[in-house]
Amino acid sequence: MIPIITAFEQSPDRGRGLARDMPVRWALEEVGQPYDVRLVSFGDMKERAHRSLQPFGQIPTYEEHDLVLFESGAIVFHIAERYKGLLPNHTGARARAITWMFAALSTVEPVIVQREVSLYLESDKPWCEERLPIVEERIRSRLAELGARLGNQEWLDDAFSAGDLLMVQVLRRLSGSNILDDYPNLGDYVARGEARPAFKRAFEAQLTVFTGKADTKR
Amino acid sequence: MIPIITAFEQSPDRGRGLARDMPVRWALEEVGQPYDVRLVSFGDMKERAHRSLQPFGQIPTYEEHDLVLFESGAIVFHIAERYKGLLPNHTGARARAITWMFAALSTVEPVIVQREVSLYLESDKPWCEERLPIVEERIRSRLAELGARLGNQEWLDDAFSAGDLLMVQVLRRLSGSNILDDYPNLGDYVARGEARPAFKRAFEAQLTVFTGKADTKR
Repeated sequence: MIPIITAFEQSPDRGRGLARDMPVRWALEEVGQPYDVRLVSFGDMKERAHRSLQPFGQIPTYEEHDLVLFESGAIVFHIAERYKGLLPNHTGARARAITWMFAALSTVEPVIVQREVSLYLESDKPWCEERLPIVEERIRSRLAELGARLGNQEWLDDAFSAGDLLMVQVLRRLSGSNILDDYPNLGDYVARGEARPAFKRAFEAQLTVFTGKADTKR
Repeated sequence: MIPIITAFEQSPDRGRGLARDMPVRWALEEVGQPYDVRLVSFGDMKERAHRSLQPFGQIPTYEEHDLVLFESGAIVFHIAERYKGLLPNHTGARARAITWMFAALSTVEPVIVQREVSLYLESDKPWCEERLPIVEERIRSRLAELGARLGNQEWLDDAFSAGDLLMVQVLRRLSGSNILDDYPNLGDYVARGEARPAFKRAFEAQLTVFTGKADTKR
């Protein structure tokens, strides 16, 4: 049995690969593990059946025999532990790669998501325009720090890892803005991630769901 | 050599155990591993020496021989992998515990931190009062979902794990509000976490730093 993940039937990002099935697809492509996709509607996600897999009513989930996981970070980590290619063998390098996984999701992503909260959830509020630059300044602080650490390295540690996969995916959320333009080494870093064959296959797979050309089981 | 962590010289939470050294101390106490603490001032944190350990200029860090880690979630995970007591042995149960670690930091904590952003960073803004209930409603949605999943279980899975440690610690950030009162099973869950001897020892250790009775090396 190959793993089954869930993804949006109709992704709100219109196929830009910003939904949270994307890092899971990318991780599976990096390790060369085929997978099936079950598409869920916004209605399905909030039903008991889906919530029994994902208590917060979100995507993605990951099913493998009787194991059910959720949280894209945890699923990517499980894939990285179960298959070769996303975590180094050396204990120290492995711990550092895991550190970057948590840094991506716990330190960098939250400030970036707040920009989307401003733009999409609070766009009708009187404070939207005045608050957005404050939110963006918080993003810029984190990017300056991340860019300073990355320097002219190719990846955050010696070799591409699940930490880079999640960090690139988090930074991709800024693709609709011009914020990354001011951090050219981070822009190049994202481009290196997107140039990976595994990324491209994953991106194509989620795009075909949106364009209606997907060959997935329901 | 025993591990060395960094913590605030003067914690902004005034010893309430909400700073991010707390989950690391708690994890070390759960596994029975002694540790040293190096206190850092707000000035120190932004200097090159500390940033070489922690690129975002924050606490905690974790040093063990030549291994340097940051991100409290990653440090707790490293402790859980290195010592016994915070992750189950069975592959499936272990993956589920890790899922709850990511859920705590990536799904529950960000909405809770936004309340602190409103109260402390944006308290002087004209939108503060009108926006706070919106922020709190997002917290309540997540708590309702988490509480529904927890039900009348003692812990999120079969036994206490690093997932519970991080989730309890995240929920403790609400201790200055009355929000948890509306989710009694979550309140009880937090109380069960705080009743653990390891929690109490960790709490006491960080409190003595604030009260000036700490016996830590500088």
